[in-house]
Amino acid sequence: MRFFGDYVLIYDTTLRDGTQAEGISLTVEDKLKIARKLDELGIHYIEGGWPGSNPKDMEFFERARKFSWKQARISAFGATRKAGMKAGDDPNIRALLEAETPVVAVVGKSWDLHVTTALKTTLEENLSMIRESVGLLKEHGREVVYDAEHFFDGYKANPAYALETLRAAEGAGADWIVLCDTNGGALPDEVREITNRIRRFIRKPLGIHTHNDGDLAVANSITAVSCGVRMVQGTINGFGERCGNANLCSVIPNLQFKMGYRCLEESSLRHLTEVSRYVSEIANMTPLNSQPFVGTSAFAHKGGIHVSAILKNPRTYEHLDPELVGNSRRVLVSELAGASNINYKAQELGIDISQDGDRTRELIAEIKELEYRGYQFEGAEASLELLLRRGCGQYEEFFTLESLKILVEKRPENGNGGGINSEAMIKLRVGDQIIHTAAEGDGPVNAVDNALRKALEEFYPCLKEMHLVDYKVRVLDGKDGTRANVRVLIESADSTGTWSTVGVSENIIEASWQALTDSMNYFLLRRCRKKD
Amino acid sequence: MRFFGDYVLIYDTTLRDGTQAEGISLTVEDKLKIARKLDELGIHYIEGGWPGSNPKDMEFFERARKFSWKQARISAFGATRKAGMKAGDDPNIRALLEAETPVVAVVGKSWDLHVTTALKTTLEENLSMIRESVGLLKEHGREVVYDAEHFFDGYKANPAYALETLRAAEGAGADWIVLCDTNGGALPDEVREITNRIRRFIRKPLGIHTHNDGDLAVANSITAVSCGVRMVQGTINGFGERCGNANLCSVIPNLQFKMGYRCLEESSLRHLTEVSRYVSEIANMTPLNSQPFVGTSAFAHKGGIHVSAILKNPRTYEHLDPELVGNSRRVLVSELAGASNINYKAQELGIDISQDGDRTRELIAEIKELEYRGYQFEGAEASLELLLRRGCGQYEEFFTLESLKILVEKRPENGNGGGINSEAMIKLRVGDQIIHTAAEGDGPVNAVDNALRKALEEFYPCLKEMHLVDYKVRVLDGKDGTRANVRVLIESADSTGTWSTVGVSENIIEASWQALTDSMNYFLLRRCRKKD
Repeated sequence: MRFFGDYVLIYDTTLRDGTQAEGISLTVEDKLKIARKLDELGIHYIEGGWPGSNPKDMEFFERARKFSWKQARISAFGATRKAGMKAGDDPNIRALLEAETPVVAVVGKSWDLHVTTALKTTLEENLSMIRESVGLLKEHGREVVYDAEHFFDGYKANPAYALETLRAAEGAGADWIVLCDTNGGALPDEVREITNRIRRFIRKPLGIHTHNDGDLAVANSITAVSCGVRMVQGTINGFGERCGNANLCSVIPNLQFKMGYRCLEESSLRHLTEVSRYVSEIANMTPLNSQPFVGTSAFAHKGGIHVSAILKNPRTYEHLDPELVGNSRRVLVSELAGASNINYKAQELGIDISQDGDRTRELIAEIKELEYRGYQFEGAEASLELLLRRGCGQYEEFFTLESLKILVEKRPENGNGGGINSEAMIKLRVGDQIIHTAAEGDGPVNAVDNALRKALEEFYPCLKEMHLVDYKVRVLDGKDGTRANVRVLIESADSTGTWSTVGVSENIIEASWQALTDSMNYFLLRRCRKKD
Repeated sequence: MRFFGDYVLIYDTTLRDGTQAEGISLTVEDKLKIARKLDELGIHYIEGGWPGSNPKDMEFFERARKFSWKQARISAFGATRKAGMKAGDDPNIRALLEAETPVVAVVGKSWDLHVTTALKTTLEENLSMIRESVGLLKEHGREVVYDAEHFFDGYKANPAYALETLRAAEGAGADWIVLCDTNGGALPDEVREITNRIRRFIRKPLGIHTHNDGDLAVANSITAVSCGVRMVQGTINGFGERCGNANLCSVIPNLQFKMGYRCLEESSLRHLTEVSRYVSEIANMTPLNSQPFVGTSAFAHKGGIHVSAILKNPRTYEHLDPELVGNSRRVLVSELAGASNINYKAQELGIDISQDGDRTRELIAEIKELEYRGYQFEGAEASLELLLRRGCGQYEEFFTLESLKILVEKRPENGNGGGINSEAMIKLRVGDQIIHTAAEGDGPVNAVDNALRKALEEFYPCLKEMHLVDYKVRVLDGKDGTRANVRVLIESADSTGTWSTVGVSENIIEASWQALTDSMNYFLLRRCRKKD
């Protein structure tokens, strides 16, 4: 495998193994968004799903074919053919081919116990299943990644047979032989010993796929690389079944910055923190503050000795420069640093506040207070722009609220949800005119949206050109039950682009109102003129 | 160190290093509770605090002295004396002695950079500080654990000096020499190499103290043990500054069940999951579902193939018997569900459906239809149980809805969210009685929750014993904007445990209603009887 030199290829399976995590369920749209983000990061292989097991995944592959990827190769996942069947007749293998991806990953059994207990077939038939499945996929011109399921457990139980399964895949032309610790219980010393032995017999490049059941997935992955493996399979944030897969957000910086391998461009790695948070957001999983490298606490220093040492020399209490992975040190944020951020942002938006130091300080204090209450402006720049403009008096309201009432009525005979009625009555002031109207909706927030549009479109007909494309709700601290704070993020679009807004309140109606009206105000500010 | 044989002693620092974690703050009472739980588990050393840095910790030590510990030795933590001062005059060392613990841990510098940059003293003076501090503590009859701060970074920078600091501590009589990876950036290969070298020079028993900044704290700890180290310092759940300390809930089972060392009694280890959750509860940190060994997802199986294999032989997809650490297997019902999942689940719940194949097929079809609409039962087992019981006619409703109306009113003068009013009017039937009442809330869902409780508590006073602990909202496909389907997940608790329920609808009120009423019905089904 010397031709790879120090390069280690990254094979991401967030969209397949990652979705096995409890609580994660991604739509096709979600998967495409994540895949595009991974491609931008420079990930080499993106496994999109299991077309033979989940028909919904086929739509992903159809849409992925039409997209021009920067460098990622899209992979479809499947199992070897069933026992006693031709590979070409196996519906799972056929679905794999129909996905029309440049790469396929095919998983086969290495552990004799699994062959006889789970598959209930013979050891010899399993070898044919591997050979014929890999062979057929190679005949169709695919790059074939062979995943040797339970390889380490299999090797410990019956080394000769486990090795034979790899040779069957290699002989049939597999491009990669991936050693999988499917149950996640292997120790780094075992991974080292077994990988070193395997390297004497297998010429094809090797990969590693680990799970975190022993809290050792990252250690096992980097140990395998130090033994010559040149592909690491894992997921963003370590999402995956049970305790998760190897966390690529930890594997990559360890390989690249600590061990001197080359995985991604260093300029791309500066987006690692952003990608980690983006994927958490799409998957609606609360990010883990203490997550190594990319967590918000990963480079947070409490007061006192640490902080003063850090200021003298960051190496004293930091194992890595946080900027290398796009994270940042959190100490007492100096007002100066805050001011330069705000000034930078304002300048970008064409708002001139740099002359007025008091104004900047007030705005920083206001933003900090809002962030403390749960607002997040990183994902809601339209709301931030409105906040800055309002703060600088460079904004005139397009409308003001006089009153809003919402009535939701549920009767059992209305059936299970569909028949529930939601109505909103709204009274707005536009200039010196008052408009009072009402509308229904599929829920209280939709009713407010409809009533607001109905009232405003009389004055601003251009509002018909904008529409909502995404509506997300995050409960900020679930421990207060139904009384908890919620954050609403709304993404809106017109023919020229999209923008995002945010609202936070204990009341979901209020939080939605803030985000909805910010969205309309932003649209009106940028693209329209008042009718009268 | 041969006299320890296969024994590895566990030194817990949850009460000291663990409290450095962002968001953790423990009262003296909390600390005593945790310490008693750790003592029951059989932990050998419990570090209670830093008396010299936090005067509040002194109360812990005073109260700890009066308690008769089963086997734990209580330790107080402090730093070596300040430069240019007698050890006996250093207030920090004096506080350490005043704690009157059988064990003291004293931390000193190993890294020349820290001596000159952070302490701003000479390398020679640092050696005296170590020698004299350890010496004084030994004179007072303490068992002295010497923590060599930044040892691995120090050794890499200046191996001769780093070794000299250890020799200073050993020469002064330290009972343990603990190698610390304070910045958490060491790799397992480095830990192995450096520990092996150190063993040639140091005769006293060695310990290891790692942090998780590289996602390698557990691997580094067990690697050090395999090199002869016989004390592991860490925290429950890996709590600690930045990315946390070595997680003892992972270190201990790896050492004991995978590597054959002896840490705790096997009968005690069966309480590990309970201890992990207890400490999370006291520290008010949300437990991590995917936490290795002790997380609720750690032995949860989702895929249909996995489940049918697990039923044949658990080893096929489990790296360890969950009962060894007091955890349990969970079968998740999901999109990938087959008959084997449903039957397993029903059996677990004591519902007999296995004889009736048609019934099973109907239930699977119903579950798949609900999952297609966005329900997710893997995170809502109480809703699944109610569904199965209703499907098998083994359930009687505790109440039925006659009507529900919600009124939300917002006026601009009410201010930013706080003044918005939400009211719910509810009419329920319980048996042949009708109850009609109303309540306010912090939002429409909270108002419904309050009204529902107000109505039902007349009939079922036991409902006062249950409360909501988590409320999650997920917008299922944001593309439809405010008209999108939402999924609500509710976690509830009483004094005996927690349970989760789910609801899905275009209308957040309806989705919340489903999850709320499922939660109450489940509670009533399991724990109460009707009053009349």
